[in-house]
Amino acid sequence: MTYCVGMRLDKGLVFMSDTRTNSGVDNISTFKKMFTWENPGDRYITVMTAGNLATTQGVVSALEERTKAPHERKPSIMEAPTMFQVARIIGETLRDEILRTRSIAGESASSTFSASMIVGGQIAGMEPKLFMIYPEGNFIEAGDDTPFFQIGETKYGRPILVRAYDRDMSFHDAIKLLMVSFDSTIKANLSVALPLDLQIYASNSFAGRNRRIQASDPYYNLIADQWSDALKSAFHSLPDYTG
Amino acid sequence: MTYCVGMRLDKGLVFMSDTRTNSGVDNISTFKKMFTWENPGDRYITVMTAGNLATTQGVVSALEERTKAPHERKPSIMEAPTMFQVARIIGETLRDEILRTRSIAGESASSTFSASMIVGGQIAGMEPKLFMIYPEGNFIEAGDDTPFFQIGETKYGRPILVRAYDRDMSFHDAIKLLMVSFDSTIKANLSVALPLDLQIYASNSFAGRNRRIQASDPYYNLIADQWSDALKSAFHSLPDYTG
Repeated sequence: MTYCVGMRLDKGLVFMSDTRTNSGVDNISTFKKMFTWENPGDRYITVMTAGNLATTQGVVSALEERTKAPHERKPSIMEAPTMFQVARIIGETLRDEILRTRSIAGESASSTFSASMIVGGQIAGMEPKLFMIYPEGNFIEAGDDTPFFQIGETKYGRPILVRAYDRDMSFHDAIKLLMVSFDSTIKANLSVALPLDLQIYASNSFAGRNRRIQASDPYYNLIADQWSDALKSAFHSLPDYTG
Repeated sequence: MTYCVGMRLDKGLVFMSDTRTNSGVDNISTFKKMFTWENPGDRYITVMTAGNLATTQGVVSALEERTKAPHERKPSIMEAPTMFQVARIIGETLRDEILRTRSIAGESASSTFSASMIVGGQIAGMEPKLFMIYPEGNFIEAGDDTPFFQIGETKYGRPILVRAYDRDMSFHDAIKLLMVSFDSTIKANLSVALPLDLQIYASNSFAGRNRRIQASDPYYNLIADQWSDALKSAFHSLPDYTG
């Protein structure tokens, strides 16, 4: 599996993805699942992927027009007028890739080639946007009621996101929150693993700050250690049962 | 879905199950998923079920020998010499029920009739035991390394169980822990819901204490309210990111 979270904050967007892919527990690899297209001052688009790796790599390659010689590539997402159009293009590319592979493999593999994506970014003159794209190519946009999206192995890390997310939180608090959510997932599920990719996008900057968090990362390990203790303390601070 | 947890403590066994069954989100009902057979001074056996309701009710009815007149019933689990034998009988009954229904419905419904169970209890002269039974009829026993089992919608409520469980915890602390784990699940998943069934079994008592926790339960609501705040405080107590 995979675990990716995209969050919309008042200050901008935050993305985090793991890097583990597996085909059975005895065949694991590290692959990047976060991809960015940028044109300084004009647009900044980030995509995170979950699902079949051949499908998601195929979509990313199609978006980059790798079938053409490098000097002939004009990715349509770099010319779309709105983030809504960007999401539609990515959705259609994803749907076409899945349908194409399925038509070759036949019905028996109907779920094997599935994938989903989180797309976020900003085009000059408009607000930053965040979308979740389904295998069918349709998509939903994050709003005030649902300001973050998760894909992949979403359940373990959801309770803390639901409770501690705050739209006016700082980027540093958002990173802390994502690390806790990823730690809960990684501790419970072998199919999600470090290193993690982190990206911070401040509104109207049209430039992201990227960091790869390795297994040796001191801050991640501090959070992972202290969260266990903090959770235990929180538990013991609750009133005792007296039934 | 369903959510059930069975825990082995030094002091005995604790069981908690929800009561929601659903067939789609627009067809929900309340059904008990916790069943007990007892013979004071001799044995105490509790079963919790997850999966297809017709399958699990069929298994429970078969275990109770409801095909016979009440005065002719001698459930074999009430005469088995060990809890291991009890688990084997229940596992075989579950497997046979699933195979029987599948053979009627055909291969297309191969996963529809599946179910799994947690079985715990004690027979006089032996230690309390806890088992998880798979649809195939085989089973595993809780040991010191894995002292609790979950079935159904297990992921949301797992991180707190993993961190706060302690084999020498009191029954009251165990109830608090289960309520937190169920609250995390109920807040995230519509297919798990109150009321909850709680059972405490103290070693060598051969009698359980049962309680149904309704949606209006003051302690449950206190825990649900305060856990959100406690979790937020725990989160804010972590060191800030300074990358």
